[in-house]
Amino acid sequence: MVQVNDIEWSTTEKELARKAFDQAYKREINALIETVREQASTITKLDEIWQLHDFLSARRHQIDGKYDYRYSVLIFVFAQLVREGWLHIEDLKGLEVDKIAKVSALTRM
Amino acid sequence: MVQVNDIEWSTTEKELARKAFDQAYKREINALIETVREQASTITKLDEIWQLHDFLSARRHQIDGKYDYRYSVLIFVFAQLVREGWLHIEDLKGLEVDKIAKVSALTRM
Repeated sequence: MVQVNDIEWSTTEKELARKAFDQAYKREINALIETVREQASTITKLDEIWQLHDFLSARRHQIDGKYDYRYSVLIFVFAQLVREGWLHIEDLKGLEVDKIAKVSALTRM
Repeated sequence: MVQVNDIEWSTTEKELARKAFDQAYKREINALIETVREQASTITKLDEIWQLHDFLSARRHQIDGKYDYRYSVLIFVFAQLVREGWLHIEDLKGLEVDKIAKVSALTRM
């Protein structure tokens, strides 16, 4: 089990973490906007409208839940974002090596 | 109070009513598709994605509830569709004069 509850974050690390977090968020949102615009532009049937609605319901729920900036869960959040491709391990450069190792280990779970 | 529960529909009227109903539905759906495509094409922010989602949630609920093809409620449905502009009184031409009068009276309520 990876221990993450008692991790300390220095001021510099906090700034860096916030930046990485925001960057991942921006990437995911931009991709979502792109997808919605593309999907919507091809809609010709009511079914496709409701498919778009279902898709947005799911994405809203996922995004609301996922971007949780609490230091107690941040390692897990980062691991998920790396797994999904919104964050790259290199974006975390500057964090303690141990933290990066933890994120890295979690992405492989 | 307009009495509509015991209205009889002839076979010809049923065919005509179905056609008018489907036409209104088609008009509303096409307008919705157009709106969604337009709205989506201008999206640049996450807020606007969730606005689209809220809009679709509301429209889905309205449309699901509104297009109720039961002869016991059809006069009310037609009145609402006329009020909203998806159906024109002329689309009902061929129904008994009394039915058209009822729809017409209800649209003014």
